[in-house]
Amino acid sequence: MKDLKPKTPLLDNINIPADLRKINDVDLRQLVDELRADMVYSVSLTGGHLGAGLGVVELTVALHKVFNTPEDKIIWDVGHQVYPHKILTGRRDKMLSIRQGGGISGFTKRSESDYDTFGAGHSSTSISAGVGMALARDIKGEKHNIIAVIGDGSITAGMAYEAMNNAHLTNGRLIVVLNDNDMSIDRPVGALSAYFARHLSGDTYMTLRDIGKKIAQKLPKPVGYALAQTEEYTRTLLSGGGAFFEAMGFYYVGVVDGHNLEHLLPVLRNIKDEEDKPILLHIKTQKGKGFPAAENSHDKYHGVGKFNPTTGELSKGISNAPKYQDVFGESLIKEARKDKTIVALTAAMLSGSGLIKFQSEFPDRCFDMGIAEQHVVTAGAGMACEGLKPFVALYSTFLQRGYDQIVHDVVIQNLPVKFAIDRAGLVGADGPTHAGSFDIAYLCNLPNMMVMAASDEAQLVHIVATAAAYNDGPCAFRYPRGEGIGVDLPDVGVPLEIGKGKIVKAINSNSKSDKKIAILSYGTRLEESLKAAEALEQDGYCVTVADAIFAKPIDTKLVDELAQAHDLLITVEEGSIGGLSTMVLDYLVANDLLGGGLKFRPKYLPDNFINHDTPFKMYDKAGLNATGIINTVKQALKN
Amino acid sequence: MKDLKPKTPLLDNINIPADLRKINDVDLRQLVDELRADMVYSVSLTGGHLGAGLGVVELTVALHKVFNTPEDKIIWDVGHQVYPHKILTGRRDKMLSIRQGGGISGFTKRSESDYDTFGAGHSSTSISAGVGMALARDIKGEKHNIIAVIGDGSITAGMAYEAMNNAHLTNGRLIVVLNDNDMSIDRPVGALSAYFARHLSGDTYMTLRDIGKKIAQKLPKPVGYALAQTEEYTRTLLSGGGAFFEAMGFYYVGVVDGHNLEHLLPVLRNIKDEEDKPILLHIKTQKGKGFPAAENSHDKYHGVGKFNPTTGELSKGISNAPKYQDVFGESLIKEARKDKTIVALTAAMLSGSGLIKFQSEFPDRCFDMGIAEQHVVTAGAGMACEGLKPFVALYSTFLQRGYDQIVHDVVIQNLPVKFAIDRAGLVGADGPTHAGSFDIAYLCNLPNMMVMAASDEAQLVHIVATAAAYNDGPCAFRYPRGEGIGVDLPDVGVPLEIGKGKIVKAINSNSKSDKKIAILSYGTRLEESLKAAEALEQDGYCVTVADAIFAKPIDTKLVDELAQAHDLLITVEEGSIGGLSTMVLDYLVANDLLGGGLKFRPKYLPDNFINHDTPFKMYDKAGLNATGIINTVKQALKN
Repeated sequence: MKDLKPKTPLLDNINIPADLRKINDVDLRQLVDELRADMVYSVSLTGGHLGAGLGVVELTVALHKVFNTPEDKIIWDVGHQVYPHKILTGRRDKMLSIRQGGGISGFTKRSESDYDTFGAGHSSTSISAGVGMALARDIKGEKHNIIAVIGDGSITAGMAYEAMNNAHLTNGRLIVVLNDNDMSIDRPVGALSAYFARHLSGDTYMTLRDIGKKIAQKLPKPVGYALAQTEEYTRTLLSGGGAFFEAMGFYYVGVVDGHNLEHLLPVLRNIKDEEDKPILLHIKTQKGKGFPAAENSHDKYHGVGKFNPTTGELSKGISNAPKYQDVFGESLIKEARKDKTIVALTAAMLSGSGLIKFQSEFPDRCFDMGIAEQHVVTAGAGMACEGLKPFVALYSTFLQRGYDQIVHDVVIQNLPVKFAIDRAGLVGADGPTHAGSFDIAYLCNLPNMMVMAASDEAQLVHIVATAAAYNDGPCAFRYPRGEGIGVDLPDVGVPLEIGKGKIVKAINSNSKSDKKIAILSYGTRLEESLKAAEALEQDGYCVTVADAIFAKPIDTKLVDELAQAHDLLITVEEGSIGGLSTMVLDYLVANDLLGGGLKFRPKYLPDNFINHDTPFKMYDKAGLNATGIINTVKQALKN
Repeated sequence: MKDLKPKTPLLDNINIPADLRKINDVDLRQLVDELRADMVYSVSLTGGHLGAGLGVVELTVALHKVFNTPEDKIIWDVGHQVYPHKILTGRRDKMLSIRQGGGISGFTKRSESDYDTFGAGHSSTSISAGVGMALARDIKGEKHNIIAVIGDGSITAGMAYEAMNNAHLTNGRLIVVLNDNDMSIDRPVGALSAYFARHLSGDTYMTLRDIGKKIAQKLPKPVGYALAQTEEYTRTLLSGGGAFFEAMGFYYVGVVDGHNLEHLLPVLRNIKDEEDKPILLHIKTQKGKGFPAAENSHDKYHGVGKFNPTTGELSKGISNAPKYQDVFGESLIKEARKDKTIVALTAAMLSGSGLIKFQSEFPDRCFDMGIAEQHVVTAGAGMACEGLKPFVALYSTFLQRGYDQIVHDVVIQNLPVKFAIDRAGLVGADGPTHAGSFDIAYLCNLPNMMVMAASDEAQLVHIVATAAAYNDGPCAFRYPRGEGIGVDLPDVGVPLEIGKGKIVKAINSNSKSDKKIAILSYGTRLEESLKAAEALEQDGYCVTVADAIFAKPIDTKLVDELAQAHDLLITVEEGSIGGLSTMVLDYLVANDLLGGGLKFRPKYLPDNFINHDTPFKMYDKAGLNATGIINTVKQALKN
């Protein structure tokens, strides 16, 4: 592939944005082309997020050219789009390590660079962070600019609205760039998205000169020469789009072609340093821009594996088993065929949540509500009030956004909303911002909530059936990112008995050994637990392995058995402290089952964040692979 | 006071809304007046939320008159405003029990009435619930109307925006009534609020006939006669106000005088059953309307104690000690005088959070950002990035709204944001929706987070100083609703040693008794723990009482001492499972300190929700008063 490496003479001379700022405007087009080619090349070798970055190459160059970064602060929302920014800010030589163990992160990360002003993996945080930074700047009497770049998918989240509504508190010099590419990961949803689209296709266009005049009327400085000069290239609008954002206290400027530097640069220079009000600059870009394979793909190569940088042909991974998300989706379809009250809700994650086929078969019973987790949870509660069985399918880490709604709208009212929690546990390349670490703990604490986890893809089928059949209150079930372990899938799901775990591997309970170990696993650590058991038995230990299935209510009969017949009980789970371990431990101490020959060791995620790597290596660091379990056993019984 | 009871001949004949619907329009004014007088009278005897209810008396009557409740569903946001609704829906005879043990709730509650379609205590949930109910209705092929009533303070919350953006998914018959009274509890904040205000004071008014025409153009039915008839009374506007909501996919109708039935009734009749699009009806009302003392008060008698129903004079409670919220506010002022980087943020709770004086002294360092908890947390993170020390002051139950932002924006980045958590634990009359039950657990689970609680108001002073001095990462500290216990307050706060608890009451550790008890208290249960200790000692037990102060990191040296020198260790905390008890228990089992003579009993909130009552009685039900602690001790040592 080495011969596919593009020639990049201008880019080769840029280590930091100050180098870029020495390049004349007329040469920036070449730089943009080189940067785009360089990014396609490096992502073709590593995989990663491609489409979003390709869409903002011009914007990235223009922002670093016009603004004095890092004193002026760019805040990139979500962070999918920061590859060009990373290349321009001293990390070009590390791009081939992106998202790999020891390599740079796929998102912005404060510890990685002064140019990464705010870490982002979840969407819609940039305006809030920007408002906070701008207020801090004002208090300190500083004068730099703050620019938050947010997409049209992200701006539909509630926290973006809350932030816009407070932007007027700042002394200006706060620019929100709305990067409108008519895309979230799947497709845009929501009324606001349609509203933007209407404006973009409308008749009322203003020339760039008109925009200049409008800005000039409001801003304390004259319209620049460059602005007038570029008028003839412009096709922009400034009509109703403004009303929405002006209601939020912004000067609205747009819509500007985000791939045209001759438009972007003068507009940015004009709105820079504006001290009166925050400005919303609405630009139109194309996700995947400049790489035909991405432009033509359904998801614009949002997140890709390795590919051929010329043709875009994707390297095919070898798939051993179906993905958990698809097993969930297929299982839900089967349940929904039998039960008309089953509906599915998600938040901008229709494909990631495995609901594409469900939507095809039940278009009227499937709701992608955009990045709106708070609303999705409470809308599910409203549906449950009316007798539906809503399955709210969200990733563990994003469900955090709906925590209050789970407590206040679902749990207090004891409504039978079913939470399908994908990406549970460590997720690999996306790192700590996307790890599903806390859901077991934050759900087990809540009254009325029933909490399950799948230990393999076959069990997930039965768990979906269990959730569909359970109508006494809310329930939640979690399953990891990625593929199952390759077990046969049952044709139909059969509801499990609530609160009943099972012994997966038994020992002779009459053994007189003082090295009898019980491993109570919750979720897909079962595989590693069994591996640990095998190795331990070779070392002379007797090991029982059980699958808890339920973290709440726990199977107290099973725990009794394990406690009575073993010298050491270990819980293993892909989550933080406060989950299964707490439920089990609490039961043990309430019944004085500890001591008197029984030790207990909980295995959960450690009290720190684990950087991106392969899931296996991350779990190794967490001590949650077979090795970690074995070490814990030996350590515990050594004393 | 009995002679002050108003005469209410019309109201006396109404048991349910169907009775109201038999009354002619012309007599409804009298009914409204009776209802308002009845409500003032009953609240004067009970205390409760008054101002919000007074503002919606006409709206409540009009909605129940025009719509076929409970088949048509009214969803009241927040629930402060539902007293008139409760009176009209079969609960008039229970109004004197409101917010008291065994009495009806101060909010909507599904278990209380079919007319309470959705429980609400937190704000801004009504549109989401309404969208969910409307989608369920559409799926089931039903045709009833759904009406969500939301205030101008509540609509600034992110989840309301997320919900509006998805309202277009429904088949119409969804009406959002924006009850614009220019008030949240304190005062309106945010750009949107200013925007509404501009429209209300603008020149562009439309007559009711114009509104009718506009509706008629859009709606499939003709303008009613009544609508045209009332034209001359109308003073409404339909201009830019619509642009915002029409961007969100609504037909916008307004602004209508919400106290004028001759406007309200025809407009409601006209927009009823609209099948094309959701409708936003913007009405203007006055909080506290019709009761001069409320109208003239700063907070419009938002929440009041008992008062004279003629003069409005409030009964004076006897105050023994300052409120925790004020101790927090005063302490923060003292710290802020010494440290210019200290700033305070809150979400529509400036007075409730004790920040009024802070704002007076440091207007540029105090930010009330409206009902926007997600944004407030992340704005705090942005400020911390720039070297400020943000104190984010929120009630425990509302902080749940910012949970993802705590994890993703604060904790992962290890930013020194300080969370001042008010209303920790059970809160009394506001009941389960306002209980601060989960914060200890949901914060202790998080890496990097330091977690404290004040055991009395003097300790709170030192804890604020500790938070101000601590810059290694995020921290949180909690304190309850209401007054302190009357201890002397220190002049200045002195930072505590991180992770260091203290023994408050010691025993002779050389005692040979096998009834040696250690009570490790966290927060203001310390008082009850000491009471329990006293009673237990009279019964022959030896009791040590310690104050943990820190739930994370715990004082392991202190725990070691307690474990080694006692037969039973009890943790006591005003929160759910997963908090201090888990932190302590986890340490005990990791070091095999249980068994071998030591029992452990955690005392935390039970796994259910406790209905409103006095805090003392609620804690009694929770088993967290002295009696409960004593019972646990005796039970544990009996076996």
